[in-house]
Amino acid sequence: MAVYTHLGTEQLAELIAAYNVGDLVSAKGIAEGVSNSNWLVETETGRFILTMYERRIDTDDLPFFLGLLDHLSGKGCPVPRTIHDRNGAAWREIDGKAVALIEFLPGVSPTLPDPEQARAAGRALAQIHLAARDFPRTRANDLAPANTLAILRDCGQHALGSIDPALPETVEWGAELVEQWPDELPGSVIHSDLFADNVLMLGNKVTGLIDFYFACNDMMAYDLAVTHAAWSFDRTGERYDAAIGKALVDGYTDVRALEESEREHLPLLAQGACLRFVASRAQDWIDTPADALVTRKDPMEFVRRWQFYAREGTAVFA
Amino acid sequence: MAVYTHLGTEQLAELIAAYNVGDLVSAKGIAEGVSNSNWLVETETGRFILTMYERRIDTDDLPFFLGLLDHLSGKGCPVPRTIHDRNGAAWREIDGKAVALIEFLPGVSPTLPDPEQARAAGRALAQIHLAARDFPRTRANDLAPANTLAILRDCGQHALGSIDPALPETVEWGAELVEQWPDELPGSVIHSDLFADNVLMLGNKVTGLIDFYFACNDMMAYDLAVTHAAWSFDRTGERYDAAIGKALVDGYTDVRALEESEREHLPLLAQGACLRFVASRAQDWIDTPADALVTRKDPMEFVRRWQFYAREGTAVFA
Repeated sequence: MAVYTHLGTEQLAELIAAYNVGDLVSAKGIAEGVSNSNWLVETETGRFILTMYERRIDTDDLPFFLGLLDHLSGKGCPVPRTIHDRNGAAWREIDGKAVALIEFLPGVSPTLPDPEQARAAGRALAQIHLAARDFPRTRANDLAPANTLAILRDCGQHALGSIDPALPETVEWGAELVEQWPDELPGSVIHSDLFADNVLMLGNKVTGLIDFYFACNDMMAYDLAVTHAAWSFDRTGERYDAAIGKALVDGYTDVRALEESEREHLPLLAQGACLRFVASRAQDWIDTPADALVTRKDPMEFVRRWQFYAREGTAVFA
Repeated sequence: MAVYTHLGTEQLAELIAAYNVGDLVSAKGIAEGVSNSNWLVETETGRFILTMYERRIDTDDLPFFLGLLDHLSGKGCPVPRTIHDRNGAAWREIDGKAVALIEFLPGVSPTLPDPEQARAAGRALAQIHLAARDFPRTRANDLAPANTLAILRDCGQHALGSIDPALPETVEWGAELVEQWPDELPGSVIHSDLFADNVLMLGNKVTGLIDFYFACNDMMAYDLAVTHAAWSFDRTGERYDAAIGKALVDGYTDVRALEESEREHLPLLAQGACLRFVASRAQDWIDTPADALVTRKDPMEFVRRWQFYAREGTAVFA
């Protein structure tokens, strides 16, 4: 979370002039997004998030990401739409970097969501799954278990063990998981990173799902499992909050019924979600100097969740 | 420029409830301020900057800083006012840290100000000098030349020389400067850090002077000299822009005439401003690891300005 690039006011005003949104009134660099620079921009006609794609994001994916926002918001989902420039383009370039202007949505992300909020998030997730089924573009999930297992393996047993002695054995668990991974469950475009940070709410109402930069085509039930793993535990992963977990699934099924095979696979899918966050956190841990200004996230928080799902099985989702 | 503290949404909502500003609608951590964490907060009734004082700022100074905003805005200066809580307090505490809610002002800081903008900034500076003369609180300038010379000395000749071979001799220049420093020029409360970043504008109109956390009682002409040194050069300090420098002084004197002794002292005062930024940049350079994410600012940019003022003398301000 940072602003990586300095954008001069004159440069910003020139960019804004390419859109039919009136003159620039205010612009503040905001501390959101891990792979982008973001500004909260106000013009004479409204407020917008200006995103500059810094790294990790392949501009070839922008038609998918930005088109998805338009597709979902066009169908009434609580998703910000992409503002197109005077020529209809969804993004422009500044100094060789792609930038997009995105609708600003009100709302704040719940830090400690309650069950009613979890239920609303579950409903919104199902809503985007249904609305995205006829989205014409596709994008492969490059963080599927086979990929994240490779990331974890690349960390090396020694480096993993230096983070925590219990971490190296997750490579074996991951290998078993990849062998059992289903591929025939119903698919759509999934958000695939719906932590509470990415949900804007006013009270119990979802006003925005944001940060679709991991969105891809994959099994819908996997997305529910990711969200379940992200929302239903205390930060350390030690304590499962059954009321939150149940509310998420209930909210989801209010809008889209789960097939029996999806429900049966949820414990396994949730373990796949944990593998992914263990791998990405282990990699970031190793890549980030201990004295860097950035706080490293402990991969063990998701190892504990993984163990929980492996131990409890389908009882969690009964 | 960073957000140092994570503030949970529930914590934020509770804080906002202590003010008569309606419910929280949105909050984004913004990348502004070097010694504070800042959020752009929207409530049902308006927008605000929430500032959390992290370090460098002594809470004993808050009555001065926050009272000054109220004093100046009450007199029609383009300065954000402090929002007081339901009990009338100008700041509150969260987790032992002081926080204040400040009016949000529109406008963007010019990256490459033109002379008309410089003139408007000069006028606004004179306006706050006049308006602050009857502000009842006082605060000493802890960055006066004697203090900043001490900072520069404390860096050590060896460390200074490792930044640039030309840097160690500025300690001698500083010592001469301190001996010649005037103390009888007309005083008021001064901003003392009016870089263009701290001026919000819409077109050629100043909509806000911000970041008063270096404000103190000192000579008004010194503040004009600080602003002159900050605005009138290219970034490297190699090229003086006479049109900007003249516009700043003209704008200032549109509102407040300079006494003859003030005008005569401007070259010396400007060198004092340069000493201050040389010292603070040298100290930051030494304190910041070369591989830190923060970009270090080169003290030599102000050594060149210093040489310019020493060489050109009163001709610059004729």
